Amino acid sequence: MPQFVDTQTVRLFDAEHPLRMAIGADLAPVDVAYETYGELNAAKSNAVFICHALTGDAHAAGLHAGETRPGWWDNMIGPGKPVDTDRLFVISANLLGGCQGTTGPASPAGGVGAPYGLNFPIVMMSDLVAVHRALMAKLGVERLLAAIGGSLGGMQVLQWALTYPREVANAIVIAASSRLTAQNIAFSAVARRAIMGDPGFRDGDYGPQGDNPDTGLAIARMLAHITYLSEDALAEKFGREPQADENHPGFGVDFAVESYLNHQGEVFLERFDALSYLYLTRVMDYFDPFADPHATKAILNNPVNWLLVSFDTDWRFGASHSRRILRHLEDARQPVTYRNIPSTWGHDSFLLEVPRYHDTIRAFLRRASEVAK
Amino acid sequence: MPQFVDTQTVRLFDAEHPLRMAIGADLAPVDVAYETYGELNAAKSNAVFICHALTGDAHAAGLHAGETRPGWWDNMIGPGKPVDTDRLFVISANLLGGCQGTTGPASPAGGVGAPYGLNFPIVMMSDLVAVHRALMAKLGVERLLAAIGGSLGGMQVLQWALTYPREVANAIVIAASSRLTAQNIAFSAVARRAIMGDPGFRDGDYGPQGDNPDTGLAIARMLAHITYLSEDALAEKFGREPQADENHPGFGVDFAVESYLNHQGEVFLERFDALSYLYLTRVMDYFDPFADPHATKAILNNPVNWLLVSFDTDWRFGASHSRRILRHLEDARQPVTYRNIPSTWGHDSFLLEVPRYHDTIRAFLRRASEVAK
Repeated sequence: MPQFVDTQTVRLFDAEHPLRMAIGADLAPVDVAYETYGELNAAKSNAVFICHALTGDAHAAGLHAGETRPGWWDNMIGPGKPVDTDRLFVISANLLGGCQGTTGPASPAGGVGAPYGLNFPIVMMSDLVAVHRALMAKLGVERLLAAIGGSLGGMQVLQWALTYPREVANAIVIAASSRLTAQNIAFSAVARRAIMGDPGFRDGDYGPQGDNPDTGLAIARMLAHITYLSEDALAEKFGREPQADENHPGFGVDFAVESYLNHQGEVFLERFDALSYLYLTRVMDYFDPFADPHATKAILNNPVNWLLVSFDTDWRFGASHSRRILRHLEDARQPVTYRNIPSTWGHDSFLLEVPRYHDTIRAFLRRASEVAK
Repeated sequence: MPQFVDTQTVRLFDAEHPLRMAIGADLAPVDVAYETYGELNAAKSNAVFICHALTGDAHAAGLHAGETRPGWWDNMIGPGKPVDTDRLFVISANLLGGCQGTTGPASPAGGVGAPYGLNFPIVMMSDLVAVHRALMAKLGVERLLAAIGGSLGGMQVLQWALTYPREVANAIVIAASSRLTAQNIAFSAVARRAIMGDPGFRDGDYGPQGDNPDTGLAIARMLAHITYLSEDALAEKFGREPQADENHPGFGVDFAVESYLNHQGEVFLERFDALSYLYLTRVMDYFDPFADPHATKAILNNPVNWLLVSFDTDWRFGASHSRRILRHLEDARQPVTYRNIPSTWGHDSFLLEVPRYHDTIRAFLRRASEVAK
């Protein structure tokens, strides 16, 4: 019998204590949707914070009552799994700027009235971390055994551990980047152009009219999906297989890969908001922590135990991105373990049950727990 | 003093002699825009046919009177250049289904009245070749010294030489594919989705209203441009440079690469038609000549002299695509020269003056001319 989990919401910033954002704006209220799995031990030394990627949410593991599909990282988090909830207290929160319960551009401005839309302040990586820290404090945790995340999630972990190394004993940064390339930015720029160029976008004021930029958002998602899979993975999954028994030459859906992308675009509309897509992709574009010459000042005196993971077929944030992070951390005399793990599935691998990957996370966290004892 | 060139138009198929297309439809009239450079010799043995890529046109070389920008392959074609117009008679024609003078979906249906729109028949690679052959015959040429083309152009050359090897003494296939991968198809599928999902597309009936799918077509072009350049080329050209003196965080154009893509999208609208984009990308998706077990029957008895070229940083139709063609041609006992040429610029290299590339084309064509004597 599975134990059901719930998403809870907590107000972490209000008008009296607003969130001072990196860009200078004050934001209030800030409500955060989160879940926890496992129990916090008496020493409060077994907390692991899950940082989610671009389109994730607080529901990382387990089942919601009445649903059959578990959380997005259920293969990683649970009893006996690499992030072992028999031993660990796991916190998973929806990101600031998101659309799954945490305050974002679709929330009522100031907590009342019309949605922020494009008046929502630009979000930086440090803002995501500021909200995570407030939640951690609220839950009575002063120091994490580990923070872990893939892709944008890994970037939050990097930002957090660089800035507040005393709060993060172990930092697990998976398939992430410290500095997007021109090509990375270019893909996101086209996605944003598709969203903002959709007449349904209405300069971000689309909610009330019910006239959403669905076409633009679906295109953004389809495009992103191409970059999440390796060319070989796409070939292995779809090849040139026709969707139906025969090709019907035309502009419909003839090839299986077209059907797959269309489906990915469509189902995404049910769970994601176009403005959140804009804000959270931009967080990645602007992220460049080591551009600050003082970036590693804090960790020089308070080393963090790092695990970096990349996947050999990831062409979005592949080994070259992880190796750049590795060089910076080694220059700052950090203990770093780096693994470039073979996997057919490209960037998506961080979400999948790749045995060597899961074994690596499992072993690292087990050792982290033992050291913490 | 440059010698000016002109684009001419000729009717190659009419109601009495329509073009029987691969899909079974008859098309008439078919007018073709073309240019020629150099002189056909008395033996009619020095003709070279230029097959253009997705968004090219008949104006491959030289200057039009009153213009300052030469044809799209002017670095390759001209007096003393690799395709040397002092020795060769060069024919360059706009593709069937295109929008630069040759009959396509924006042409009046049946030569009169409203544009075809989506009623234009689906075009296959063999249709492009059928029109090229008709133009060649019209110009009094029975056999080409060479056909040459890059990307979609190279695929036309491959189709032509496989089917009518007696007409093509030398076939130069550059940065092309005999079979698109799922990833290749996926990128085109997203581009088509952007075009067809633009409310201005109006199911292809957008011309008369003047309400074009400009947003969709610009997105298609931006996306394609990412795939035309290698990741290193984008990094070298743009890195993470801000577009203005400082970044202004927001959703405007902050990074140089965003400005570049926006510009590429915008200028494309002035010269290209959304329906042609649909039809000509689909030609590539469906192209798979070696799927036919008899594909190499004709060349087995009438070998063609082949030159295949790929570029090492091309991630659209890179070396793996050329090597697949190479294997098929070697199985058919063809004389093939294959060069995988180092170049920073990815797929775009076929349009650029890469010295080893130009030297290779020059040497191959010089030798071809000598053999032909």
